[in-house]
Amino acid sequence: MTNPGFITVEGVEGAGKTTCLGLIEQQIHARKLELLVTREPGGTPLGEDLRGLLLGHQHTGMADETELLLMFAARAEHLKARIEPALAKGIWVLCDRFTDATYAYQGYGREIPLERISVLEDWVQGHRRPDLTLLLDLPVETGLERAGKRSSPDRFERQALAFFERVRQGYLSLAATHAQRYRVIDASRPLGDVAGEVRQAINDYLDRHTG
Amino acid sequence: MTNPGFITVEGVEGAGKTTCLGLIEQQIHARKLELLVTREPGGTPLGEDLRGLLLGHQHTGMADETELLLMFAARAEHLKARIEPALAKGIWVLCDRFTDATYAYQGYGREIPLERISVLEDWVQGHRRPDLTLLLDLPVETGLERAGKRSSPDRFERQALAFFERVRQGYLSLAATHAQRYRVIDASRPLGDVAGEVRQAINDYLDRHTG
Repeated sequence: MTNPGFITVEGVEGAGKTTCLGLIEQQIHARKLELLVTREPGGTPLGEDLRGLLLGHQHTGMADETELLLMFAARAEHLKARIEPALAKGIWVLCDRFTDATYAYQGYGREIPLERISVLEDWVQGHRRPDLTLLLDLPVETGLERAGKRSSPDRFERQALAFFERVRQGYLSLAATHAQRYRVIDASRPLGDVAGEVRQAINDYLDRHTG
Repeated sequence: MTNPGFITVEGVEGAGKTTCLGLIEQQIHARKLELLVTREPGGTPLGEDLRGLLLGHQHTGMADETELLLMFAARAEHLKARIEPALAKGIWVLCDRFTDATYAYQGYGREIPLERISVLEDWVQGHRRPDLTLLLDLPVETGLERAGKRSSPDRFERQALAFFERVRQGYLSLAATHAQRYRVIDASRPLGDVAGEVRQAINDYLDRHTG
């Protein structure tokens, strides 16, 4: 048995993550490898409860620190209950967003110092990091349009655009910092081209990793 | 206006915390000082939801790390939403348990490394620590009897006794380490004696702190 890979998919709204996850799943199954497909925040019953607290409208005024700790609490549970046991049994793991999303949205987007996030990442994950991260990158306006948002923004939406622009640039910075595990895919192209590049990236990785 | 004090009360089950909190509240009010009385885990609507997740039976198998992060998430919200704003306005704060309880129960009791807890304490609290901590100390068996538990323990209860013994010794270690802010009160004596010593401790503190 070769060591299983831990693959994550990242990107802003409308980048096509769901389609991409489906393609990766097919390819891994085509190689007869066992696979756990999961998502963050969530992935466990407790994690889904926390996802409800985080994304719901009941506690919208929560402090940035509280939100970060809840994210990492859900992640700690996800790692202990599902991801680590799967990897230990030789099962591959494909996760829709992981800690890079925390850096991109809370760190770059909301401007919480990255060092603060890094302390929690080390505390929760030890040395565990994804082996391969696919970043689906595209201009913010294209993504929001695809996600069904209006194209002529009002004042509030322009603030949102600035936020998502910071998130996008944050993801690109992360990809540059962790170039060895990142594959940046231009998701603004027609679906066929994007799918081709995703397949190529996964096949390259599978060839190297299981070969 | 003198700086308000941040007072916490700690102790194992059956030590008489509730009575003690009432006495302290009376004394602070007698000096015409404004006071916020609160508790952990909890103290905010989100904190009470998290208290439900932590103390309920729905997620009993959660990982130690998850539990610690949820505790500190509730604490972060409590500090930001209630404790820090109160202190900033000159309002005294009296809290039923605080971070020392995390060290005593999770650290000493459940044997999670204290350094792990310390990282989260610094992350969440910065330099904020209680100004005065009253520890109601008594033999574990006395406490459990008072709390209505059986006096001749079976095997499971003996394990529980060993746990509470570690918690008690943990509290005493914390009191020794932070001797300047701790007052250890022998809570095994008759109520009148205990109450007298609590009053004395608080009066001493109020005299020094507001005088």
